[in-house]
Amino acid sequence: METRKISPEEAAQRLLAADNILILTHKNPDGDAIGSALAIDRGLRQKGKHCRVTWSGELASYFSLITEGYVTDSFEEPDFILAVDLANTRLLPEETQCYADRVDMVIDHHATSVEFAKETLLEAAASCCAEIIVKVLIRMECDITTEIANCVYVGLATDTGCFRYSNTTAENHLLAAKLVTLGVDIAKFNEQIFGQKSRARVEIERRVLAGMEFTAGGRICIITVTRAMLEETRCIESDIEGIATIPKAIEGVEAGITLREQENGNWKISLRTATLDAAEICSLFGGGGHRRAAGCECSGTPFEIKVALVAAINKRLGE
Amino acid sequence: METRKISPEEAAQRLLAADNILILTHKNPDGDAIGSALAIDRGLRQKGKHCRVTWSGELASYFSLITEGYVTDSFEEPDFILAVDLANTRLLPEETQCYADRVDMVIDHHATSVEFAKETLLEAAASCCAEIIVKVLIRMECDITTEIANCVYVGLATDTGCFRYSNTTAENHLLAAKLVTLGVDIAKFNEQIFGQKSRARVEIERRVLAGMEFTAGGRICIITVTRAMLEETRCIESDIEGIATIPKAIEGVEAGITLREQENGNWKISLRTATLDAAEICSLFGGGGHRRAAGCECSGTPFEIKVALVAAINKRLGE
Repeated sequence: METRKISPEEAAQRLLAADNILILTHKNPDGDAIGSALAIDRGLRQKGKHCRVTWSGELASYFSLITEGYVTDSFEEPDFILAVDLANTRLLPEETQCYADRVDMVIDHHATSVEFAKETLLEAAASCCAEIIVKVLIRMECDITTEIANCVYVGLATDTGCFRYSNTTAENHLLAAKLVTLGVDIAKFNEQIFGQKSRARVEIERRVLAGMEFTAGGRICIITVTRAMLEETRCIESDIEGIATIPKAIEGVEAGITLREQENGNWKISLRTATLDAAEICSLFGGGGHRRAAGCECSGTPFEIKVALVAAINKRLGE
Repeated sequence: METRKISPEEAAQRLLAADNILILTHKNPDGDAIGSALAIDRGLRQKGKHCRVTWSGELASYFSLITEGYVTDSFEEPDFILAVDLANTRLLPEETQCYADRVDMVIDHHATSVEFAKETLLEAAASCCAEIIVKVLIRMECDITTEIANCVYVGLATDTGCFRYSNTTAENHLLAAKLVTLGVDIAKFNEQIFGQKSRARVEIERRVLAGMEFTAGGRICIITVTRAMLEETRCIESDIEGIATIPKAIEGVEAGITLREQENGNWKISLRTATLDAAEICSLFGGGGHRRAAGCECSGTPFEIKVALVAAINKRLGE
């Protein structure tokens, strides 16, 4: 579908003309997905709109900071379908796939965004979708209540890793300053979002660290996540988020490898590098990705896979 | 010594009247100590002053971001002694204890600051000393170069836990926005300060996690750091910084206990709590502290100590 690129101003006008608005976002929703959806929902309700945000899957416990007390409006058929933080309708959860061809507007910040909606508000330079939502809310002349500020903060803080990731901008800090003055209790929010690890996460980490292996004089670090470990610890998806970043985050590690056992018995490999071309290395095993973060899927025993990967990496480290 | 409380304006005037300035800070200096000292040093040099920052001890590797290329000015005797981020002269390293009674000015943000300098610029509401330094630099009409902004960012980011801790303010975010526009490469800085763990840290963590114990239905979590573990992993002090926060950061944990073996064979206990009065519990064992973070030192076997602590905590959990 060919889409029309729109500005925050146009997005605001379009939303103000709608009545019953269904708000979609991607599956396994993160803080920016839910935060963006609930922020625009709450702004639209100020304007007398009926809104319904749908999401699926188990959410990490910190989401209760913004989802608690959320009640969807009841309407039969939406007259407007808005998607937020959604780069591709393939990423919709199963329950909302039926709307994939009917999305009226998408508000998103992913550079990988494909055209699927009638109108698209895309700001690929934004660190999070929530900061674009704020622009639309301001154009709709919404009151940025503490409740809305809370939703925006969750999106902003999670997508920037609490202002740590490389995508963090001066504008993000200015927005954060504004959100604090609007009443966000950032001490409480940060503690719940970043200060707490689930028991399952700690249990998987202790197993993963116990089995951590180093080679090439500490320049290669390998961790392994088996299905048995996931079952023992009862991890849900959000519990193992970012686990592949552990090896590379160790001083002196040039290549961090994560082996994760799949249901079909294969092993999903994630490779993070400091200077080597991760995509090139993974392409040797039928995979690909980015220069510093790539992946592939391998069959065989973990030992065989590790030997093959280490050989390929060692060769390049020696060059 | 009775001190005179001064404003950033007065601090600026006083510094501009000095020539050879010795800049002191506390032992085991953190990012805010070194960042504040180097920021004011660099500002003062713009004004033609001779400056020497002294610090002692091994610094974590990220400090090279701001210490690289730093050369002290050579002068025999300082005509002005400035202390930064120093709450008490007892916290000076041994090498600079000789200056303890001669400090002309202290710039600090610790609520626990005691009077020791002739003049004191204390802003206890500031999250970091570096943000007070900025005020003084502005009053001295210094150019806030990228080099200075880098030093300030290190202080700001480390003392607020990268804008995560409860001390983070709207002003901190405004300052961060300003520092980004002044050229701080926050992606690089955050990666080196927060994104990397030393190999020794990872090695101690895997040992600590392996021995982690839970009781009271997951509401009490205990970790133990032995001297053997520290020796095996060759940890320096900065490698085990914050290790006592690990147990309490687990979802569902009401009381997090850390046992750390001392040189004299005793065990230093750190207790972090969610709702219980940690100071009251530690006072039973001759210690004390704050309501949510307290400590004590115990003799005996780790098992005996854990049994006694758990009994005291269980009693209060049941109330």
